[in-house]
Amino acid sequence: VGTVDSQSSHTTIELPGLVALSTFVPHLDDTAGADAFEETTKVALASGFSFASVLPYDFSGATITDARSLGRIHEIIQDSSAYTDYSFSVAATESNSEMLQPASSSASSLFVRADEFNDKDKVINISSHFAAWPESKPIVADAKKTDLASMLLLASLFNSRIHVTNVTNAGDLSLIAMAKEKQLDVTCDISVYALFLSQEDYPGAMFLPTKDDQKALWENLDQVDCFSVGFLPTQLAGFLGKPISAGMGIADTIPLLLQAVSDGKLTVQDIVAKMHDNPIEILGLGDVDSVIEVDEDRRVASLKSQVGSASSWSPFQAKDLKGAVERVLMNDQTVCLEGEFVIKEALGKEGIISVQHPSTLVPETTNQGPSETAPV
Amino acid sequence: VGTVDSQSSHTTIELPGLVALSTFVPHLDDTAGADAFEETTKVALASGFSFASVLPYDFSGATITDARSLGRIHEIIQDSSAYTDYSFSVAATESNSEMLQPASSSASSLFVRADEFNDKDKVINISSHFAAWPESKPIVADAKKTDLASMLLLASLFNSRIHVTNVTNAGDLSLIAMAKEKQLDVTCDISVYALFLSQEDYPGAMFLPTKDDQKALWENLDQVDCFSVGFLPTQLAGFLGKPISAGMGIADTIPLLLQAVSDGKLTVQDIVAKMHDNPIEILGLGDVDSVIEVDEDRRVASLKSQVGSASSWSPFQAKDLKGAVERVLMNDQTVCLEGEFVIKEALGKEGIISVQHPSTLVPETTNQGPSETAPV
Ligand SMILES: [Zn+2]
Ligand SMILES: [Zn+2]
Ligand SMILES: [Zn+2]
Ligand SMILES: [Zn+2]
Ligand SMILES: [Zn+2]
Ligand SMILES: [Zn+2]
Ligand SMILES: [Zn+2]
Ligand SMILES: [Zn+2]
Repeated sequence: VGTVDSQSSHTTIELPGLVALSTFVPHLDDTAGADAFEETTKVALASGFSFASVLPYDFSGATITDARSLGRIHEIIQDSSAYTDYSFSVAATESNSEMLQPASSSASSLFVRADEFNDKDKVINISSHFAAWPESKPIVADAKKTDLASMLLLASLFNSRIHVTNVTNAGDLSLIAMAKEKQLDVTCDISVYALFLSQEDYPGAMFLPTKDDQKALWENLDQVDCFSVGFLPTQLAGFLGKPISAGMGIADTIPLLLQAVSDGKLTVQDIVAKMHDNPIEILGLGDVDSVIEVDEDRRVASLKSQVGSASSWSPFQAKDLKGAVERVLMNDQTVCLEGEFVIKEALGKEGIISVQHPSTLVPETTNQGPSETAPV
Repeated sequence: VGTVDSQSSHTTIELPGLVALSTFVPHLDDTAGADAFEETTKVALASGFSFASVLPYDFSGATITDARSLGRIHEIIQDSSAYTDYSFSVAATESNSEMLQPASSSASSLFVRADEFNDKDKVINISSHFAAWPESKPIVADAKKTDLASMLLLASLFNSRIHVTNVTNAGDLSLIAMAKEKQLDVTCDISVYALFLSQEDYPGAMFLPTKDDQKALWENLDQVDCFSVGFLPTQLAGFLGKPISAGMGIADTIPLLLQAVSDGKLTVQDIVAKMHDNPIEILGLGDVDSVIEVDEDRRVASLKSQVGSASSWSPFQAKDLKGAVERVLMNDQTVCLEGEFVIKEALGKEGIISVQHPSTLVPETTNQGPSETAPV
């Protein structure tokens, strides 16, 4: 996949546009929502992502809980330009199981944060969401320990497809592996930040893995279906009292993963599988024809930037990460070059394709047509 | 089932000897153990029970955790007389999964108290017990809420037979009902005390059901496979600072249940099913040929008593319960008459029959042979 670029003899890697799973958009449902959404997709596109799967949560709680709130979010983002394709999820709350059905057709998944539910009758309450949600679409669960086990039980009882997001500890990953072995229809992701930051780096940041858990995550990557961006980068910024901006963590993703490739801990094919092929298949997302070209030796900071990521806080800023996204093509058209947007208007659209779950993944290669070998 | 006794024209009900599920024996593993065990089985026999399934817990924690401790308990009770048949379970601890296999042949079940396990890696830890325990014998789980869901998940993943003991809330019973509907091999019991006492009677006694939960238990008795005696009576005594004695709650069982029959809330067949047929089938217990005769109108206090139950504390003492066990026959021989033991030696033996789990219950009727119609 790595090729030597003749003009300047640096190593360029070509990847399909990645999927940003569990993308947090601050203030999604208020007046700041349109700008935050646009900014997030802009950061995402410039950072090598062609799809953002948006979290139905805000700092104020669940933002998308039914057809009405989903309609309101659509109205809000009408005032913005989407630079990537995107999809929304519906959040499960203690009282909205009966509102799920009408909302499900416009959402990619049901999103369940198990710790948002009262312990009393938690399992029975969430079971009504599993019963109401259509089998053809996945349930994404942010759940740990016995909550995770409860979600897996419900998935088993209701023959649901379940995707566990933001796994941060070894026991949870083992349980998921065990469930897979026993033929449960379960997949999972870990946040890229969780692979590179631990509680050892930030004592008290319980949302990060311990150093031991992080080691176990690395050692069992074969059980991990996807890497997500997730809420973790925003959560860390909040924990440290840093300013929160749109698209946190997104720009660090490719540089961090390519660093792991160059350290021999990942392959480029792992990145393609876990950030493109698998998320698209698992969430039933529409796949835009997109290609990104990354110079693995070039500093991200060397690019001009029209997006906020340059000014937004990152725990990796000081490390001056390499792995600059030099060019992004969508539908055979260069949309971002050297960090600058070269299109008249944003091309992103809502991309949900409700697919039946195939039993095997059909991996999409990064070179399948002339459009992807367009001259650089 | 009720017959009019010609001598005195009171209503006598004939039942098979009942099974005391989850029987707590105080100080089972120390010098007081032999006496406590003998006293417990004596109270049980005089109160209409022919089988005691003994809890592998003491106030000090788990008493039976491996073949060695099971052997020690057998040595301790050699110094006592067993008045009923009995069986032991092995307790699951955080470190004994590898010791289960050798102990399993002499035990009726594996007993898991989920709240004894550390939350960190609880599910994975307990999964090793499910993996190690032979499929032919049940796993008895004392687990609530998400812990219960975790146990049900493990039962599903390992094709285990699971019996949930001491259900006290509506949500847990609903979850069990849902699991049954989805073909999980799960059964459950509720403690008789939980049917008659609530947190409204004893504020702060969180181990009792709330009044609402108790109402739901009564309304869903068709989902309840067994009634147990359990630890609840001892727990209540401890909570109230009353003296703890052997066999707490046992003597109250038949009077309480017959009161419910006379109130139209239960049938005698419910008692036979939930305290004889089902426990025997579920735990694979040996069924001794036993018959008890109960006068439903006669006060328990009217019987002479050679056992401690007369002096032991009960929350129902003041109510002067009716439903005296007038006669107990074992193997066609009267062993207890009007509260007095009329046998030279105790007849109880260890009764475990490792049976394959039949898919349907074959109910044993209370009148199946001439031995059970022996003249009164
Ligand atoms: Zn806001
Ligand atoms: Zn693609
Ligand atoms: Zn293509
Ligand atoms: Zn370059
Ligand atoms: Zn003791
Ligand atoms: Zn019997
Ligand atoms: Zn018989
Ligand atoms: Zn009588």
